[in-house]
Amino acid sequence: MKYELYYWPEIQGRGEYVRLALEEAGAAYVDVARGPRGTAAMMKMMEAQKGTPPFAPPFLKAGKLVIGQTANILLYLGSRHALAPKTEAGKLWVHQLQLTITDLVVEIHDTHHPLGPSLYYEDQKPPAKKRTAEFWSERVPKYLGYFEQLLSENGGAYVTGRKLTYVDLSLFQIVAGLRYAFPKRMTAFEADIPGLVALHDRVAARPNVKAYLASPRRIPFNEQGIFRRYKELDN
Amino acid sequence: MKYELYYWPEIQGRGEYVRLALEEAGAAYVDVARGPRGTAAMMKMMEAQKGTPPFAPPFLKAGKLVIGQTANILLYLGSRHALAPKTEAGKLWVHQLQLTITDLVVEIHDTHHPLGPSLYYEDQKPPAKKRTAEFWSERVPKYLGYFEQLLSENGGAYVTGRKLTYVDLSLFQIVAGLRYAFPKRMTAFEADIPGLVALHDRVAARPNVKAYLASPRRIPFNEQGIFRRYKELDN
Repeated sequence: MKYELYYWPEIQGRGEYVRLALEEAGAAYVDVARGPRGTAAMMKMMEAQKGTPPFAPPFLKAGKLVIGQTANILLYLGSRHALAPKTEAGKLWVHQLQLTITDLVVEIHDTHHPLGPSLYYEDQKPPAKKRTAEFWSERVPKYLGYFEQLLSENGGAYVTGRKLTYVDLSLFQIVAGLRYAFPKRMTAFEADIPGLVALHDRVAARPNVKAYLASPRRIPFNEQGIFRRYKELDN
Repeated sequence: MKYELYYWPEIQGRGEYVRLALEEAGAAYVDVARGPRGTAAMMKMMEAQKGTPPFAPPFLKAGKLVIGQTANILLYLGSRHALAPKTEAGKLWVHQLQLTITDLVVEIHDTHHPLGPSLYYEDQKPPAKKRTAEFWSERVPKYLGYFEQLLSENGGAYVTGRKLTYVDLSLFQIVAGLRYAFPKRMTAFEADIPGLVALHDRVAARPNVKAYLASPRRIPFNEQGIFRRYKELDN
């Protein structure tokens, strides 16, 4: 079976956490909306009047199943591709961590869209500056400090210990994204999170991830996604 | 086994989705932080240096397991108390819907805290007005319209059909909360969501929920929680 991933074709966005999991697993998949008429196919599935239409991308078609919500897709893939522990307690723990990353991703998006997702960034620059200042003074230390501590306490190469999970892939993306969006702020902050920086490098060096990052399948960061580089927010 | 729920003692907040599930299920639980020295016990668990400390409340202690993140707790309780379908596809579907409600809850919180959770509402009133306007013009119709359509298409009493799931309990809370926070706006909007209004009433009339709502265990809505009544945002 070949998975079908449905996500916006021009951004990493929330789809990237799923792409990273599929790539690390070496799973066969099509990134549907990046192909001909793919976006139309995606919209059609969301507008379905019957069954289980997803509220928003990303969603994954796995045989007859259509699974929406990033963390839910990872919950599903984690069990099938050894990207999560096998025990129920282990599964719940990595899912809990992924949901904490989900919360962080919303807050990252809010740095440039504090007045809501329907307005342009250009129409909310002053509040974006305030929100970004609060994000870096209060929220980044709290979130990344939490994951840094888990890494150092567990003493392993990955957040849950010796084995990589989808959470590690997502944390790689968080570090890479914050480096892209806030190069100055992140450079200054990295001294506080040596474990996460090492984790980023360890994930990037895994053969499947490395090949993916060097391929055209990895969409470059840009100012349409979650992580946006706006000079005025990075100082 | 008696569950231990850990959540802020003075608000409904995100803990309420868990409380509603425990109450509907008739499960034995202690709302730990509402008892003597309970908040200190909660903080201690979050500050644990070892193991699997939660990032934030709510979290549920179930025997030796400590489960964090609202939707993750419901995923766990859903399987154990017949508040979710038994099939894997069904479980993933209701979890997906719960994660969509989670996204909505973040956006509800952002109406009064667009500049971030660490600042007071009083310090962000003008952006809160803008965010609230966008929330009601764009986001409420999109989110509630989605659930309204699911209800009308499935033709059942509940979102997935004949049987109540934890998603129905959460949608009850969304309707109740929006009525509390935005009485004028919600009154005008309810004509568009007859199915959700009927669902709200159906859930409120279930014996266990009804008894809970009439008990002191149900904390009243107030201006410290997710749903806050600020007159200047409701017009």
